[in-house]
Parts: sequence; C-alpha cells; structure tokens
Amino acid sequence: MSAFEFYTDDIKQDMGAVDNYIKRALKTHQRLLSDVINQLAGSGGKRLRPLMVILSSRFGDYKRDEIINLAAAIEILHMATLVHDDIIDDASIRRGEPTVQSRWGKNVAVFTGDFLFSTVFSLLSKEVSFDDLYEVSRVVKRICEGEVDQYQQRYNTTVSVRSYLRRIRHKTADLFALSCVIGAKRANCSKTVYNALKNFGTDFGMVFQIIDDILDFEGRQEELGKPAGADFEDGVYTLPLIYALDTDYRMPLLNVLSKGGYDTHDVETVKAMVKASGGIERARATAQNFADKAAEDLRPLPDNEYKRIMLAILDESVERRY
Amino acid sequence: MSAFEFYTDDIKQDMGAVDNYIKRALKTHQRLLSDVINQLAGSGGKRLRPLMVILSSRFGDYKRDEIINLAAAIEILHMATLVHDDIIDDASIRRGEPTVQSRWGKNVAVFTGDFLFSTVFSLLSKEVSFDDLYEVSRVVKRICEGEVDQYQQRYNTTVSVRSYLRRIRHKTADLFALSCVIGAKRANCSKTVYNALKNFGTDFGMVFQIIDDILDFEGRQEELGKPAGADFEDGVYTLPLIYALDTDYRMPLLNVLSKGGYDTHDVETVKAMVKASGGIERARATAQNFADKAAEDLRPLPDNEYKRIMLAILDESVERRY
Repeated sequence: MSAFEFYTDDIKQDMGAVDNYIKRALKTHQRLLSDVINQLAGSGGKRLRPLMVILSSRFGDYKRDEIINLAAAIEILHMATLVHDDIIDDASIRRGEPTVQSRWGKNVAVFTGDFLFSTVFSLLSKEVSFDDLYEVSRVVKRICEGEVDQYQQRYNTTVSVRSYLRRIRHKTADLFALSCVIGAKRANCSKTVYNALKNFGTDFGMVFQIIDDILDFEGRQEELGKPAGADFEDGVYTLPLIYALDTDYRMPLLNVLSKGGYDTHDVETVKAMVKASGGIERARATAQNFADKAAEDLRPLPDNEYKRIMLAILDESVERRY
Repeated sequence: MSAFEFYTDDIKQDMGAVDNYIKRALKTHQRLLSDVINQLAGSGGKRLRPLMVILSSRFGDYKRDEIINLAAAIEILHMATLVHDDIIDDASIRRGEPTVQSRWGKNVAVFTGDFLFSTVFSLLSKEVSFDDLYEVSRVVKRICEGEVDQYQQRYNTTVSVRSYLRRIRHKTADLFALSCVIGAKRANCSKTVYNALKNFGTDFGMVFQIIDDILDFEGRQEELGKPAGADFEDGVYTLPLIYALDTDYRMPLLNVLSKGGYDTHDVETVKAMVKASGGIERARATAQNFADKAAEDLRPLPDNEYKRIMLAILDESVERRY
C-alpha cells in the first residue's frame, strides 16, 4: 500500500520512530533469534496497525512517546501472529521473503512467535492500564479462537457467509479495532470519538481481510509477495468461493474441491470458476459495503488531516491489488 | 511425584482451588479448543510451579484469592510452554497421553499455546504489578531464548557443561524462581526471604531439569509417561551424555552420534555407553550439589510446615524415577 504519499510529515516521523523502537525492543543476545527477528522486522509490511494507533491518538491529547510504544507493541503482536500463522498455513513465502518456518524450521518459528508475544506484554507493562492489558489478551484469545475455527472448518463446503464474517472479525478486524482504541484511550478521547474509532477499526479490518481473500484468487505472486490461491488449497474457503458455491458453479466446484489434494490444473480451474461465477464481484461488493460503513463511522470525528489520511487508506485498501 | 502425602490440609485445599480456577479461566466457546484444553488441564502433571507459588507466599501475608490466581497463571504459562515444546520435539506422548500436536496437529497446538499464553496475561492483569508483569515477560523471553539455543546446539558434540547449565537455567529454572518470588512479593515478604526463595527456586529448577534429563536415559516409558531416550535422538545432548563424551567412551559414542538418524539399536547402544561411562552418576552428583545448595538457600526462612514441604519436595525431586 503506497500510503506514504499522503502522510503528513509528523506521521512520517512518528512511523519512522515506531520502526526504530521495534528494532530496539526486539534485541536479544540469542544470535539465531536475533537473525530471525531482524529479517522479520526488516521485511517491511504495511505497518497499518501502528499507523492506526498513531492516527487515532491524534484525536485526543497526543502523548508521543507513550503512543509510539503502544504502536510498536501492536505491530510486534501482529508479527507474532504472522509467524505462527505461517506455521499453520505451511507458508513458504510472505512479504516476498521466505517465511521463518521455511527458512529456519517450524521449531524456531514457534519460539520466535512466543518471543514476540512476550515482548508485546513487556512493552505494554510500561504504558497501558490493566484494563487495556486485559483487552489485548482478550483480542489475542479471539485471534486464536478464529484461527482454530478456520482450521476446524477446513474443507467444509457448507460454510456460511455469516460464519466466514465472524471468523475474519476475530482473526483480523478485532486487532484493527484494538489498534484504533488503545491509543485513543491513552489520549483521553471522548466516548463518542472512542466508539467511532472502534467501529472504524472493525469495519476497516473487515474490508482489509475480504480484499486479502479476493487477492488470493486474483492476485499474482509477484505482486502479493506470497503464492496466490494458497487458501483453498489448504481447505480454507473464503468469501469469493463461498459466494461461488451459491451459484450454478456449485456442482462443478464440488467436483474439484472434493479431491484429496489439488494440482496446478485444479487450482487454475477453481480460480477460473470462482471468477466466472461472479463470486469475486460479489465479495468486492461486500467489501465496499464495509468500506462505506467504515467511512460513515468516522463522521463524528472532526475533519482534520488525520481523518483524511484514514479515509485515504480506506480507499486504497478497497482498491489495492497486492 | 507423590508429594500429596506430606501436604498439609490447607495446602491440599489451595491446590484443589488452583485446579478449579484453571478450569474456569480456560473456558472458551470454541469447541475444538475447549476439548484440547480440557484434555491438557485434566491430564494432571505435578503442579509443582503453582505449589511453589503457594508455599512461598506462606512466608508472608498470605492473601489466598490473589495467590490462587497467580498460581493458576503460572501453571497455565507452564502448560503453554509444554504445548509449544512438544511441537519442537515432535513429541507424541506427554504425561501418558497423546500430545496436542500428535492428536490434533501442529496447527492446533500452536494456537492452543498462544491461547494459553494470552490467558496468563489476562489473569495477571487482575493481580500483579507492572513490575511483575515485566518480570513474567522477561522469563518467557528467556525460555524462548533457551529453547532456540537448545535447537541451535543440536548435534553439537562439543557442547560444554557450562552452556548446558545456562540453557537449563533459562529453559526451566527461571520459571521455578519466578514461581517462588511472584507470590512472595505479593505477600510482602522481606528482601531476605524474597532472595532466599528466589535462590531456592533457581536451584530447585536446576535439580528438576537435570533429573529429568537423567531419566531420559534411564527411565522407562511406562513410568515417565513419555518415550525415554527421546532427547539425544533429536540431537539434544544433555548432561549425562556431555559427561560421557568426556570419558574414554568419547570415540565409540561419536561413531554412533555422527550417524544421520538412529534406529532402536543405536539408541540402546548410546544409553548403555552413557551408563557404563559413569555419565549418569556424575550428572546425579551435579543434581545433588544443586539440591544441597537449594536446601541451604532455605536456611534464612523460619522452620515451619511450609519449609518442611519444600524440603520434602526437593528430596523427592532428587530421588524421583518418573
């Protein structure tokens, strides 16, 4: 996401500070762990969650140092979930780089994730209230429940839109909502502002994940930084496919999906059918609905540069191709 | 460990309360996760760490409800590390039951561990100070570093006693030390008592892990609840083998160890050589040294029933055969 172009100077500076803070926070004398973490922290990513922490906090009394600590903690939390997620998905590439597990093995990946998790809590122990901490733990639990849900629902061709939406809310949107409120609370935002930001975070997260799932069908590996079509190969059926299963393509799709493993031809066949069925357009329309709702959520907020950046990121998220 | 026989009634009651508290704390509506956790929480284990929390706190102003919360959090933290540890070790049996990963797959095991970790922090957010929380995160980081160290040192036949001792301190002893101090701090113990308990926890943890590593060579699966000889098969060389490599058995041992994979015969050969070399006795003497030191650590504490239980557990730990 080329969000940089519409960042204000202060936001650019603060995002740079978050990057530096993350590198410092993740120092370890264990050399292998240090190598792994440097690769992870250096491989970029969109840093959307810490950006949301910073932008949201600007609607209150912005305490820079504390907010940068929180933003870093949230990004490290996200990194931890990615590392563990890649173990589950048996992913070999992420952000255009080999994943921790493909390069160093699942074993190192498990403890790298745990190390990142504990760093999150040690950072938070400096800045947040116990209520916030409880909230962070609750979101991590939700993510775990969402992931196990997803795993348990694999190869389930009767999965409903409703259960898909619940799963991605737990898996993705709750962490965006947390990113928007954890800073806002610290900045003593009013209840109205707080609620607006919380709703925005949730709806933005839904958009983000639905688009991610769409790109899994139509994106190209070079752009995505990871192989396309990887989800349904693992039996994880996402919105475009769920919609496609609700069309005349149901039977031909089931014919392929019911096979044990899929070869390249099967993958291409499923992708072609999902496209032809209109499943992608319908998923895109659902994402657009959430995007409209997210924009609406921001209405109670004052019209300032930070709100404009949030809206611009929202637009880019709907349009993104990688 | 049949420690129950010398527990006082109040300790028995409090340990029962910890068990109930753990079950309540780990409730989730995600059915699979709930099944996994019930198996884990139900499969027993020695509950030594929460016991240390409770016993240590008795040397100060014992606030029962708070201490039971802390004791439960520490046991759940231990459960989390076990679940992730089993992924690393590719373990199929633990506490006489199939491991989470062998029964439900590595994927479920990763997120079960994460769920447990986040529960720890949500419990701690109710009772501890931020200093304690920072301390818990630091111990978890240490455990991760210890585990990655161990992984990185696999098949290293030049591993030193010193580096082995450092590794087990991080991997095991630091959590016992934390168990002894987290409650003691809450109970407002004096600095002298606090330090005595911290040293005891560390030394006790060293004894515990060295004996565990000895049993990996001489224990039997039926007694251990897990296959014996599993560590060196994975290239993890522990104290008895490190000592054996320092004897005339070095060359014949290296002959077997340098093979890629080991068959049953190789495993038995290595075990027999380690025994014949005196490596086990020497490791047992090292454990005894730590046990003597642990008993000495407790000297500043008043002679009461709780100190007697601690000493009895220490004795049993040196003598245990499973």
